[in-house]
Amino acid sequence: MRNIQITLARRPVGNPRVEDFGVVESRVRELGDGELLVKNYYISLDAGFRNWMSEGSGDNVLPAMPVDAPVMGLTLGRVVESRKAGFPEGQLLMARLAWEEYSISDGSDFIVPLGDSLPHEPSLYLGLLGDTGMSAYFGLTDIGKPKPGETVVVSAAGGAVGSIAGQIARIKGARTVGFAGSDEKCGRVVSELGYDLAINRHAPDLSDRIAAACPDGIDVYFDSVGGPLLEVVLDHIAEGARIPFCGSVTAYNAEQPIPGPSNLFQLVTKVALIQGFMTHMQVDRYDEARDQLSQWLKSGRLKNVEYMLEGIEKTGVAFCDLFDGRNFGKTIVKVADLDG
Amino acid sequence: MRNIQITLARRPVGNPRVEDFGVVESRVRELGDGELLVKNYYISLDAGFRNWMSEGSGDNVLPAMPVDAPVMGLTLGRVVESRKAGFPEGQLLMARLAWEEYSISDGSDFIVPLGDSLPHEPSLYLGLLGDTGMSAYFGLTDIGKPKPGETVVVSAAGGAVGSIAGQIARIKGARTVGFAGSDEKCGRVVSELGYDLAINRHAPDLSDRIAAACPDGIDVYFDSVGGPLLEVVLDHIAEGARIPFCGSVTAYNAEQPIPGPSNLFQLVTKVALIQGFMTHMQVDRYDEARDQLSQWLKSGRLKNVEYMLEGIEKTGVAFCDLFDGRNFGKTIVKVADLDG
Repeated sequence: MRNIQITLARRPVGNPRVEDFGVVESRVRELGDGELLVKNYYISLDAGFRNWMSEGSGDNVLPAMPVDAPVMGLTLGRVVESRKAGFPEGQLLMARLAWEEYSISDGSDFIVPLGDSLPHEPSLYLGLLGDTGMSAYFGLTDIGKPKPGETVVVSAAGGAVGSIAGQIARIKGARTVGFAGSDEKCGRVVSELGYDLAINRHAPDLSDRIAAACPDGIDVYFDSVGGPLLEVVLDHIAEGARIPFCGSVTAYNAEQPIPGPSNLFQLVTKVALIQGFMTHMQVDRYDEARDQLSQWLKSGRLKNVEYMLEGIEKTGVAFCDLFDGRNFGKTIVKVADLDG
Repeated sequence: MRNIQITLARRPVGNPRVEDFGVVESRVRELGDGELLVKNYYISLDAGFRNWMSEGSGDNVLPAMPVDAPVMGLTLGRVVESRKAGFPEGQLLMARLAWEEYSISDGSDFIVPLGDSLPHEPSLYLGLLGDTGMSAYFGLTDIGKPKPGETVVVSAAGGAVGSIAGQIARIKGARTVGFAGSDEKCGRVVSELGYDLAINRHAPDLSDRIAAACPDGIDVYFDSVGGPLLEVVLDHIAEGARIPFCGSVTAYNAEQPIPGPSNLFQLVTKVALIQGFMTHMQVDRYDEARDQLSQWLKSGRLKNVEYMLEGIEKTGVAFCDLFDGRNFGKTIVKVADLDG
């Protein structure tokens, strides 16, 4: 059986470019004992995976991705052949697998079983009802804990996680202020996502704009960006502020280590916290979050916003779009129709 | 009545020096309505106050200290005259007052009443049973939450707060590793304070030494230092690490902002947190902490270590000693005998 795989052709320098990825045709090999074959239908593009494309970036989550091997990511797939107990054929799953039409796993990868059929649109299980939604939900509710009337600021308001985090914060009764990378995106953040205010993060008078937008200080800063923006924000946090921290896009692309915020001392005088989180640590609570999110979705309080490209060969392009700011909402590649 | 006051003669540049402080004689003025007169017996020296000696350093805790005005600090004193309800004459208190023999307050300063007599040595109420002990206790128990067998690392193990934090961690059953500024201090940290290990923070192979001392990673990093040391430590934190953060000595003395840790992303992959705290936020729980600490003290499980100078005119010297590393344990100036 033919397999199209997207490989890491070379290590990205700075922002990833389309040429960093190869499109390679291969044959699916036979399964060994204890293995399963997954057909991937949708691929989730997440900036965080940029981290493991760098030399020596391996950590407790993933090893550094080898050059010329298929790029690791998150996919929605179905078990089409199984020689491993606990993974029946027909089972749908969300898994940390590679950018490819077919993946072989020994079951030790990060895999979330989803049953045989899905009550919602399949792509939602990579976005709003997948790791993206889980990040927004757990980061905001476990760490951010916004109270009605508090001010919640989101670092990448038009991004996959940010587009959901801001909406949840509003449902919780908070004032929401979002950063975005252009005036056009700022407009969409307010009109499509319902943020109270949006600020262009490239504004020369950024600190003044934050002060004006958050006269009582920032109670929650949902941060998936890190870097210099975090430094500016720290000067405006309110007493008792909470900073759920789920990524550092700034750092992924850096060729040299980027200095951290010089004003971390603000955490002391404002009695504030920065708490890192990785959604897969909460996998036993995914059902709780999914139930709540799908209820908000059905009642129309939460809106799903997607940026979808079609065809496995578009995966590298879609990933680059994340960094060039061409996406709005969740970025997904559709590899094949789930029913097809 | 004569008053000797220690003033901020000029703003320190880098580490404070004795010449930054003036010794000024004045007269105590008459009280107005709603004021109280406090005689100070002991003065606590805390590196954190260095922060407010810089131009433009005012924040929600204290305004920047004016040049030529008495230096703000923490004192143990007694109300010797009162024209304010709720502050009876004879009342002992721990308060955020100035480096001076007599202070006048309108009661709006940070004041913790201590009754008319003290069951323990008075200096303890500025150290182990004062803000210092409170910092160690609340930082470690509320944020650090060490479990038996976990590894707790303390940034300034021979300092006032660190000398207590390490002992509490050991009582809680943790392995304790302390940083100190010299091999001699490292020896005392182990022999006098009972740490399992001490590491000279100036060691050229610091990262390797930390790795060797903490083979399972650092579960709790009690940080009163911040700066480059925090960056090195972040590379060695264990999954789920907690970093109680109560100060940033590195930043106080900096003439230029010091870049923060470039590896804050470790907080994400290790699902870890940095939480700032200021002990005075917990003032309604001081009794709880004091009861526990004095019980450990009586049972001999906790040891009080002090570096005490005598005479109000030594206050500037004692403060400089903190930064030059001449202190070990809690640094205190005795202004007068409490019974005298």
